[in-house]
Amino acid sequence: MGIVLGPNRYGKAETRVVRVVRDGERHELRDLNVSVALSGDLDATHVSGDNAGVLPTDTQKNTVYAFAKEHGIDQPEDFGLRLARHFVATQPTVHSARVHIEQYGWHRLGPHSFQRDGAETRTATVTVDGAGEWVVAGLADLVLLNSTDSEFWGYVKDPYTTLPETKDRVLATAVSARWRFASTTVDWAASYAGVRAALVAAFVETYSYSLQQTLYTMGRRALEERPEVVEVRLALPNKHHLLVDLSPFGLDNPNEVFVAADRPYGLIEGTVRRSDAPSYDGAF
Amino acid sequence: MGIVLGPNRYGKAETRVVRVVRDGERHELRDLNVSVALSGDLDATHVSGDNAGVLPTDTQKNTVYAFAKEHGIDQPEDFGLRLARHFVATQPTVHSARVHIEQYGWHRLGPHSFQRDGAETRTATVTVDGAGEWVVAGLADLVLLNSTDSEFWGYVKDPYTTLPETKDRVLATAVSARWRFASTTVDWAASYAGVRAALVAAFVETYSYSLQQTLYTMGRRALEERPEVVEVRLALPNKHHLLVDLSPFGLDNPNEVFVAADRPYGLIEGTVRRSDAPSYDGAF
Amino acid sequence: MGIVLGPNRYGKAETRVVRVVRDGERHELRDLNVSVALSGDLDATHVSGDNAGVLPTDTQKNTVYAFAKEHGIDQPEDFGLRLARHFVATQPTVHSARVHIEQYGWHRLGPHSFQRDGAETRTATVTVDGAGEWVVAGLADLVLLNSTDSEFWGYVKDPYTTLPETKDRVLATAVSARWRFASTTVDWAASYAGVRAALVAAFVETYSYSLQQTLYTMGRRALEERPEVVEVRLALPNKHHLLVDLSPFGLDNPNEVFVAADRPYGLIEGTVRRSDAPSYDGAF
Amino acid sequence: MGIVLGPNRYGKAETRVVRVVRDGERHELRDLNVSVALSGDLDATHVSGDNAGVLPTDTQKNTVYAFAKEHGIDQPEDFGLRLARHFVATQPTVHSARVHIEQYGWHRLGPHSFQRDGAETRTATVTVDGAGEWVVAGLADLVLLNSTDSEFWGYVKDPYTTLPETKDRVLATAVSARWRFASTTVDWAASYAGVRAALVAAFVETYSYSLQQTLYTMGRRALEERPEVVEVRLALPNKHHLLVDLSPFGLDNPNEVFVAADRPYGLIEGTVRRSDAPSYDGAF
Repeated sequence: MGIVLGPNRYGKAETRVVRVVRDGERHELRDLNVSVALSGDLDATHVSGDNAGVLPTDTQKNTVYAFAKEHGIDQPEDFGLRLARHFVATQPTVHSARVHIEQYGWHRLGPHSFQRDGAETRTATVTVDGAGEWVVAGLADLVLLNSTDSEFWGYVKDPYTTLPETKDRVLATAVSARWRFASTTVDWAASYAGVRAALVAAFVETYSYSLQQTLYTMGRRALEERPEVVEVRLALPNKHHLLVDLSPFGLDNPNEVFVAADRPYGLIEGTVRRSDAPSYDGAF
Repeated sequence: MGIVLGPNRYGKAETRVVRVVRDGERHELRDLNVSVALSGDLDATHVSGDNAGVLPTDTQKNTVYAFAKEHGIDQPEDFGLRLARHFVATQPTVHSARVHIEQYGWHRLGPHSFQRDGAETRTATVTVDGAGEWVVAGLADLVLLNSTDSEFWGYVKDPYTTLPETKDRVLATAVSARWRFASTTVDWAASYAGVRAALVAAFVETYSYSLQQTLYTMGRRALEERPEVVEVRLALPNKHHLLVDLSPFGLDNPNEVFVAADRPYGLIEGTVRRSDAPSYDGAF
Repeated sequence: MGIVLGPNRYGKAETRVVRVVRDGERHELRDLNVSVALSGDLDATHVSGDNAGVLPTDTQKNTVYAFAKEHGIDQPEDFGLRLARHFVATQPTVHSARVHIEQYGWHRLGPHSFQRDGAETRTATVTVDGAGEWVVAGLADLVLLNSTDSEFWGYVKDPYTTLPETKDRVLATAVSARWRFASTTVDWAASYAGVRAALVAAFVETYSYSLQQTLYTMGRRALEERPEVVEVRLALPNKHHLLVDLSPFGLDNPNEVFVAADRPYGLIEGTVRRSDAPSYDGAF
Repeated sequence: MGIVLGPNRYGKAETRVVRVVRDGERHELRDLNVSVALSGDLDATHVSGDNAGVLPTDTQKNTVYAFAKEHGIDQPEDFGLRLARHFVATQPTVHSARVHIEQYGWHRLGPHSFQRDGAETRTATVTVDGAGEWVVAGLADLVLLNSTDSEFWGYVKDPYTTLPETKDRVLATAVSARWRFASTTVDWAASYAGVRAALVAAFVETYSYSLQQTLYTMGRRALEERPEVVEVRLALPNKHHLLVDLSPFGLDNPNEVFVAADRPYGLIEGTVRRSDAPSYDGAF
């Protein structure tokens, strides 16, 4: 019984690139955090330190910057595809390339002035290997709250259950969503805007009996509105807002004053997909 | 030569309170992080553990929640004043109370649906003691960037200087600003909006030869536009965007591709004030 | 073509529990962060908000605290197994339970006084479903550095390569390791100490030609020394220490002065396993 | 009534320098985060963008690296003094220099192998101006816990008080301490070790009736044991460990199971000093 090398990959993580497009007075801005991971014929470097098949992570970083100049950065999905295809096409030892991009939003204040949009990020994950190409788009840290239209009751009670049922609570979450496409030729900008709008609308418009129900509705709506999307994965932390007991001070509290709790938090994770498109972990 | 107790204070930090105002279908939301610090006759608890003069920090937290219900939360400056006055007025051992508030922004998505605005926070610091009352408003983590109209040259060169002069660079910062009022009766909402707009406009409109110049212009403009403000303190990290050398790849880089660097960073701190209003550290 | 619910799970994340064992004057301390995720018959709550099959996450939290009292906390693997088995055994709708634990270390300063050990954490991930039980132990944020005995050369050069080869560099990483057991009856404390020692010894003693080689040696050594372990997964960020060019100041720099860089960083991920124990993602 | 520039300073923050001393096989390591702030004749750059008096922050960074090579890094207080004196001595426009250093600890695993010690950091703050030189040493993020020998009762009760008195609780804190010296010629290493030991011993050995009492005892002990220290400033967050109510599950909880809470937390801040050494804010 021997010891063997199993699955492995390597790459440069978190290359921060800002690309300015200068069209006279008016500038455009793209701000990305790019992580590359390559896999392929890497046994030699692991077993004996022979690096003949290793493209240095420093070179991967350089490629990100050079491509930002040569090809520009429009949509992160396209930029990721270009990078991933490049590594697989030019390096015989690289069989698979995965490029994960976080895009930070900025909005315009003037011809060449901008303000960062805050915590929310747009993401893109591109995987290219000999067998195919997969694109997953996403967003993270979109914080939403409904101050009513949320109930939670009718659940299992066991000997450790103390939670009172409620017909009115605050429902808040930080949406982390990722969705997979059936194709690599998509209007990425329109698709992103459409999926994001569908997710937000479903959260806002759902009268909720559980965060799971809200999650499913969000995923379903994205699929209904965007035919190019085949699978949506959501992770929704339940950012608990606990009602404060004000009775010791002679005050009632009809859902008006809450503690915004840090930990612990509920965490609801789920996939919604088209019935003819099985979940594919390799793309995520 | 003895050993003595010097300046001291104590309190409950980071009480997270969310206040919902329910006016039928349409709700309003306030989301605060409140820190209280009290000082006064506290020698006994330090020296002998006699707590007869100590109002527990747990009580301070309860007071925040009870006041949120009893009095509501409109502007953070008013809420801070109410709390600070309460502690000084009701506790003979408390001679000074400082309440620091961070307010997280949410914007409306529906009658009772909201989205967090991101990283930027509004702050208020209120100090009440026997001699007076001081209010300082502020903001933090407002990230701004000009992609041109910034130069840096003509500086001191010493034997350790290698930085090339530049007539065109990216200027980016995360604004941290705090401003002091001469009075405690101010239209806080209008004042906040006005100061914030002045700071942003000055950043956007200044053709900059140094981040110090931008800082001074920002503070000056806030004072010019808002007579109720007497002193502005700014801390501006210079979020360096370093031009990437693409010449090894046969590419030029006319201010198009940058590394967004994390550390180190320049840090520019300064005060701009009315000549008849000396800086007062005790308020900050 | 319909829309269907795919894989999903839910639970309470990051329940912080501290357990004190009081044996007269001498106390023992356990400090855990426990996250539970359950899956099973959850279609109803997703599709219609019917919670009849949902054990509330609040109940899961209560169970953590009650079990900490009833059964104590000795090794995190045992505590995780007890919790995971409980949820599967007592809830007909729960088909699979995953308990992930981070344990924070404290060392003794006195009979009932302790100091936190710092950033390094010990982890345990337990998965119980109808088909079996899996235990994965691990550690995170163990930061190691060799100031020499590391080379990097002989790698692929493509048009984007500028990195100079080196026969002497600093090699530093923050070890994140997880290892799987073939059994659930193990001397967890001895095993943890043994694996940790093997990982550290391999890092220290390996003359390295690539971080991949160091990774493989670390995993191999853990397997060689601990027969109860069948698979090791390592993620090693290459915490780059960049040599500073001091020549503008008339100084040489023979590997003495370095910039400790934040981003970007290389990221090396790999699995080392026994040849008769295929990688099993479901356990991790 | 005009608008004027008030107090200001600028510098390079968070220059990360790692210095290796290679004495044959056996290496030594120093790992610092250095922040410089200069003030002086800076009106011109603020008001008009004239940088003739500005030493670039990039030059300050270079100086840190060059000095690390030229002079080595032994104790952070000495390295800070050397840097601060250099800026004041060589730049006519610089009237005051402040150097703040965080030192990360590593312990030895082999002749040239090291492990990071964790979250605790050692700090040094040096201020040099025309009038004198001040050194403040310190530490941060030293997390300590007593699982008994802590009471809290006899405090003020007002209408918002609900906290029950206790004769036995967990007392935990993350020590942040800074202490000022009367001189700049001190055995810094011995002094640091001595003050740290005094602070820890006082925390461990004090039977506590309030965290204030513990704070005062810690500061007092440092002054008693280290004559070179004249003032100690402590900030002690009360890291609350809340007793879990297990009675719903038919279990008692005699100080055995606790929630380690994140927010809110008490925050106790205080100064202990020699009676002939008034607090001096300018040094901190």
